[in-house]
Amino acid sequence: MRRLIGVEEIEDMAQGAAVLGAGGGGDPYVGKLMAIEAIKKYGPVELITLDEVPDAAAVAPSSMMGAPTIMVEKICSGNEPMVTYDALVSYLGKEMFATYAIEAGGVNSMVPFVLGATRHLPVIDCDLMGRAFPEMQMVTLSLHGISGSPMFMADEKGNMVCVKAIDNKWLERLSRNATAVMGGYSILASYVCTGKELKAYGVPGTATLCETIGRALREARACHEDPIDAVLAQTNGFRLFRGKVVDVERKTDGMFVRGRAVVSGLDEDKGSELVIKFQNENIIALRDGEVIATAPDIIASLDIESGTPVTTEGLKYGARIVVVGLPCNEQWRTPIGLENVGPRYFGYDVDYVPIEERAARAAGVRTGVNA
Amino acid sequence: MRRLIGVEEIEDMAQGAAVLGAGGGGDPYVGKLMAIEAIKKYGPVELITLDEVPDAAAVAPSSMMGAPTIMVEKICSGNEPMVTYDALVSYLGKEMFATYAIEAGGVNSMVPFVLGATRHLPVIDCDLMGRAFPEMQMVTLSLHGISGSPMFMADEKGNMVCVKAIDNKWLERLSRNATAVMGGYSILASYVCTGKELKAYGVPGTATLCETIGRALREARACHEDPIDAVLAQTNGFRLFRGKVVDVERKTDGMFVRGRAVVSGLDEDKGSELVIKFQNENIIALRDGEVIATAPDIIASLDIESGTPVTTEGLKYGARIVVVGLPCNEQWRTPIGLENVGPRYFGYDVDYVPIEERAARAAGVRTGVNA
Repeated sequence: MRRLIGVEEIEDMAQGAAVLGAGGGGDPYVGKLMAIEAIKKYGPVELITLDEVPDAAAVAPSSMMGAPTIMVEKICSGNEPMVTYDALVSYLGKEMFATYAIEAGGVNSMVPFVLGATRHLPVIDCDLMGRAFPEMQMVTLSLHGISGSPMFMADEKGNMVCVKAIDNKWLERLSRNATAVMGGYSILASYVCTGKELKAYGVPGTATLCETIGRALREARACHEDPIDAVLAQTNGFRLFRGKVVDVERKTDGMFVRGRAVVSGLDEDKGSELVIKFQNENIIALRDGEVIATAPDIIASLDIESGTPVTTEGLKYGARIVVVGLPCNEQWRTPIGLENVGPRYFGYDVDYVPIEERAARAAGVRTGVNA
Repeated sequence: MRRLIGVEEIEDMAQGAAVLGAGGGGDPYVGKLMAIEAIKKYGPVELITLDEVPDAAAVAPSSMMGAPTIMVEKICSGNEPMVTYDALVSYLGKEMFATYAIEAGGVNSMVPFVLGATRHLPVIDCDLMGRAFPEMQMVTLSLHGISGSPMFMADEKGNMVCVKAIDNKWLERLSRNATAVMGGYSILASYVCTGKELKAYGVPGTATLCETIGRALREARACHEDPIDAVLAQTNGFRLFRGKVVDVERKTDGMFVRGRAVVSGLDEDKGSELVIKFQNENIIALRDGEVIATAPDIIASLDIESGTPVTTEGLKYGARIVVVGLPCNEQWRTPIGLENVGPRYFGYDVDYVPIEERAARAAGVRTGVNA
């Protein structure tokens, strides 16, 4: 079902996208400003469902890559999504049928709407992760052998790079380094595929889910209900920890922002400590040294009062947050999925256990059932 | 005047190119193997003079970039010059009229002959430096505002990158980093210009000069004459120092090989010490702490007996060498030339003084005339 996305939908979608962004995917404030500016100038954008894309159509996501810490301070010129899209179209000799988000995230859910509004392209209600991940090969299309090349990249100064790599890990290496030289982030057009492939391998409904989460957050606040509960209800998620940020280590090397946050427990978690480690996105959470959630499940920090998602670059000493764990898309839970985005890929020698199982075990421990 | 370049001409040319390469430009042994293989397979290559290129023709150099220390160990697949050329042709929608060397150097004087033989393209008797320099913007075309973009790059694995930069220094930054990710060297097609532009700004006759120097070296050896004298006669060059390498510091960071060699004087230079500092190419030479030659003039090390050029990656403890200084092309001696490749660009707070003047002063000091 086609529908129009205007300013109000964008506001909700950016908020919800930052929840699924798992701490990464870019700041929703920056993202929504970009999309709202384009929509105000060119009008609302048509959001279409995956089944409205013809099998033979060519489609491509429009996205940002780089350390989100940098994009907060060094904003886009605004034109990069069109520059990279035009380069892709010129290379292929044909327009795309539609664009879409490569991942859910405060910026990356918004970039397609900038392109969609400006170029009058529909945006497809899907993404390639169902969350945000830090590396370019971490998309569902990669699991099915679809190449991200050619990838067209642009910076705000006017530089462009096109990468045609032998596989998607080389694509990540080459584009990551080019992004670092470009100043820490770049805007991309990549992963051209057919409608048939996207219908088979994309994660459906992500834009609408982001919007639903954002709306639930907004309405809960308006009705003085618990916004955290509202998020969990929309995502089948779990409360992991409630506390105050007491330490943040963060290092941006031009490629990624990496680091960890230490959260000291409040209320029912008093006396405990949670450590979240991140590489753009939150990757693993340890409660008193014990793993309680890992990628590919979504670990997100929400403001304790408002439920507003807090990205890794926004984590500050003293922030009072609730950390939640949300189940990831099933494609990431397969052996090849876990090989690509499981805890071991990120350097943690831990088996992946789905968040539902971890939460059930923890609840058992707490009530003494399985202790 | 057109003439054919076969295996014998290549042997001489690779030797002579390594002299003008100023320690860089790649190992002549690797270079000649590449060119000879292509010529044996596809036949000799037509070398044409600049005045045989129509004004409206499109021409582009074929070249290697990266740390020559790496290319000695990680040889080309052999196909990269054609891969990058084909990508350029496909992008522009037209064949080039001819190719040529971006710089004089053991490898970079040879790459165009690999492409020329394989694709039956003539090679133009010119280059863009009259020597070798370490960075991509250091070509005469840059001094006249001609863009090196689009630049097509390939590695031996099959990865390709295309860079379209806002200026040639950004081109250098972006392509240098891509080269580092590709494993330390890459093969390029870039700097497309017209025949008219190349005739106005190229350095004419470089291929023939390389061949002449190489032939002079070979003949001097055969006739038991001094090969160093033979080189100096062909290049209007000067003997700077005669000695034994007693120390080499060399660091390859994936981008450049940088370092210095210390040469202890022999015979008439006994008791003195020469230090040569390099960034791929030799940049500055100091005798007992006093500058005696700098870029853009060519500082080259030749084997004391055979006159064989010794590249920076070939400098070894105990090697007995004669260091020579050869005047550079006049385009580099202009204010804009020196801004781009003078000693200050490379971080040495020294005025450029042409090698002829330095040599005349030194001779004056030695004979007491100007002491």
